[in-house]
Amino acid sequence: MGPASSDRPVYLREAEERGRPPVVRAGFEREWAALAGIGGGAAEGYHRFAWTPVDLALRAWFREQAARRDMACEQDRNGNLWAWWGTPGPGAVVTGSHLDSVPGGGAFDGPLGVVSAFLAVDELRARGIVPDRPIAVVNFADEEGARFGVACVGSRLLTGVLAAHTARELRDGDGVTLAEAMREAGADPGALGRDEEALARVGAFVELHIEQGRGLVDLGAPVGVASAIWPHGRWRCTFHGEGDHAGTTRLADRHDPMLPFAATVLAARQAAEGLGALATFGKVRVVPGGTNAIPSRVDAWLDGRAPDEATVDRLVEDVTAAARAAAVPHGVRVEVAAESSTPLVEFGSALRDRVATALGGVPALPTGAGHDAGILSAHAPTAMLFVRNPTGTSHSPAEHATTPDCVTGVLALTTVLENLACR
Amino acid sequence: MGPASSDRPVYLREAEERGRPPVVRAGFEREWAALAGIGGGAAEGYHRFAWTPVDLALRAWFREQAARRDMACEQDRNGNLWAWWGTPGPGAVVTGSHLDSVPGGGAFDGPLGVVSAFLAVDELRARGIVPDRPIAVVNFADEEGARFGVACVGSRLLTGVLAAHTARELRDGDGVTLAEAMREAGADPGALGRDEEALARVGAFVELHIEQGRGLVDLGAPVGVASAIWPHGRWRCTFHGEGDHAGTTRLADRHDPMLPFAATVLAARQAAEGLGALATFGKVRVVPGGTNAIPSRVDAWLDGRAPDEATVDRLVEDVTAAARAAAVPHGVRVEVAAESSTPLVEFGSALRDRVATALGGVPALPTGAGHDAGILSAHAPTAMLFVRNPTGTSHSPAEHATTPDCVTGVLALTTVLENLACR
Repeated sequence: MGPASSDRPVYLREAEERGRPPVVRAGFEREWAALAGIGGGAAEGYHRFAWTPVDLALRAWFREQAARRDMACEQDRNGNLWAWWGTPGPGAVVTGSHLDSVPGGGAFDGPLGVVSAFLAVDELRARGIVPDRPIAVVNFADEEGARFGVACVGSRLLTGVLAAHTARELRDGDGVTLAEAMREAGADPGALGRDEEALARVGAFVELHIEQGRGLVDLGAPVGVASAIWPHGRWRCTFHGEGDHAGTTRLADRHDPMLPFAATVLAARQAAEGLGALATFGKVRVVPGGTNAIPSRVDAWLDGRAPDEATVDRLVEDVTAAARAAAVPHGVRVEVAAESSTPLVEFGSALRDRVATALGGVPALPTGAGHDAGILSAHAPTAMLFVRNPTGTSHSPAEHATTPDCVTGVLALTTVLENLACR
Repeated sequence: MGPASSDRPVYLREAEERGRPPVVRAGFEREWAALAGIGGGAAEGYHRFAWTPVDLALRAWFREQAARRDMACEQDRNGNLWAWWGTPGPGAVVTGSHLDSVPGGGAFDGPLGVVSAFLAVDELRARGIVPDRPIAVVNFADEEGARFGVACVGSRLLTGVLAAHTARELRDGDGVTLAEAMREAGADPGALGRDEEALARVGAFVELHIEQGRGLVDLGAPVGVASAIWPHGRWRCTFHGEGDHAGTTRLADRHDPMLPFAATVLAARQAAEGLGALATFGKVRVVPGGTNAIPSRVDAWLDGRAPDEATVDRLVEDVTAAARAAAVPHGVRVEVAAESSTPLVEFGSALRDRVATALGGVPALPTGAGHDAGILSAHAPTAMLFVRNPTGTSHSPAEHATTPDCVTGVLALTTVLENLACR
């Protein structure tokens, strides 16, 4: 069914004329099935956290993919995995994404970019293309930050945006540091830090990713390019109250931090609506967390995003002011600390236009989601391809892209890599 | 320096004349120190949850206390421990409390009653008293319900208020059932259930407990008796939303369960204020709990209490209505389920007056906290002694009673046991 072939982008028409989609589809279904059982399932979602046994299983899968393609695989000082077609060196065209997930995440956010990268290498080879520049497939470490609270740790360390000593001391919910987790997983946290050699090799980076909204659905396009990533960050809001017995402490005697926290959740939504921003409280820790105990403390993480940095700043100021105002009558003390903050990323128009043109003029659209591509973009020409997401849902087991759209994504990435690596 | 001796209750004056307080104090300090290191500490609070290794260490401490006093120790079908002075049998005078705690609880809530019970036995013996009826010291299992969500599990099972099959299927936060936890701890969950034999032995039950409010401070009394326990219960409020990406989902497209939960917290406080009740949200679970994920679900536990049952019912109705109203605009679905509900307990005036009179007329006061004594009171004459708490704080590391008041509590309990067991 679908649109008439004349509506299809040129890269897709050419691939269809050569009978490639069924071949790519078979490859996609094979690799996708191998990944599907690691760290969760389609129904219940995935729990793929950095440096856990599940992460090590994902890394083994990546090494096996590289080995089957005779691509030399290396883990850099920051735990990122690189599979090389050609001799590793400057000017390489790099593609890939990440394999970790949020808690209960979908199957596509990250892995689609890694699987598509390997399949694009297969497709280039099937077409008999010999690149003039090395091509690398990358798996960035700990993109989601689900375990240690900071996103894009692998690419931030690589580029020096995150200091090694800060990263080593990041702690997970059980108090385990990143350094301890790396050692436990057989990696050396002493080697962390900006990696000039690895960075110098990146001539261009292209990350394919499932779209995390419905922009492409509205545009009727299976594939698009990213124009920008909204500035965003995470702020930890701590409400210090006084623990006491829920059954015997008079309301007037309480210093219950849950009440100003609740008021702050409502205030954050209102502020975001007024500013055209996004504000979310998705993680909350209540201490001590007993049913019959007034909490002594509530920690809550604000995820804030907006089209520009001034609006993000304003959002955080408004939420902080609301939290403080709500805390005063309860004798509760509030602390708000930035855990990470990422400025606006505008992808360079030269590479973006080249990619869009190579694909026959696909649409460009911004995103509110952070990506390793956003971190890399300050250091090398960087572009992103988005694959259509019918419901727009992401970070949930309901996240989905159709197999035909995933195949179209691989064919688009193939065309882009050919364009970048062969001239 | 304390009030003049003429202001002191008769049981205390008599003990002072015989030089007993320093002896009891030495015993108290010895037993208290032995308990202090198990499952936490005074500064950070205690985490003493049912059927954990910490609980087993507490049970070993109890058995050792019994053995040192030549008291036969037995664990009943429901995991409650009984130490017997005299032959176990009907008409026994039972005293004791519990050794488990809330998360980050204080040292006194529970253990003070058990330690005081053993020291009262010592004091009766030191006075050369030979009881006419058997005396038992009891440690009720899982009073706080911190692990499996239902309070007073040991006494509820003993009395048949909680069905064995329901208890066996209770789950902790890791999904472990009570049955599994008991088996892991070497106990037999198959034996759970109303225990006619154990129950028939209880001629009277007296529980000594730290007061969990400032009633005795206001009255200037070191010890009082309980008049009633407010009706109270726990209701699990589940807000079912839709998980999605915090950075890419438009506010208008969200079904974020955190927002109606927050509105419910504020509504519960307002309802409690209006009704003269208590309402607390001390435990919250956010699914999936990622910083950059809109939650798919929020589970929150309402602790509700009031002087009478109609007011508790009204509180829960008001909170439920507020939750539903707040959920509708977000397309969130709300479920409210009672996890436990305890009716008003009025301690029988015959025993209460006898105890108060034996102590020379100590004050009687109600409490909002549930206790095993509340469960037992429907099956045997039951009384409670409260020991003064200078700040009123409980369920927190700040919970405290002075050592002189604890000694006074032991002397009061000694007098009560003598009165009940020797005529």
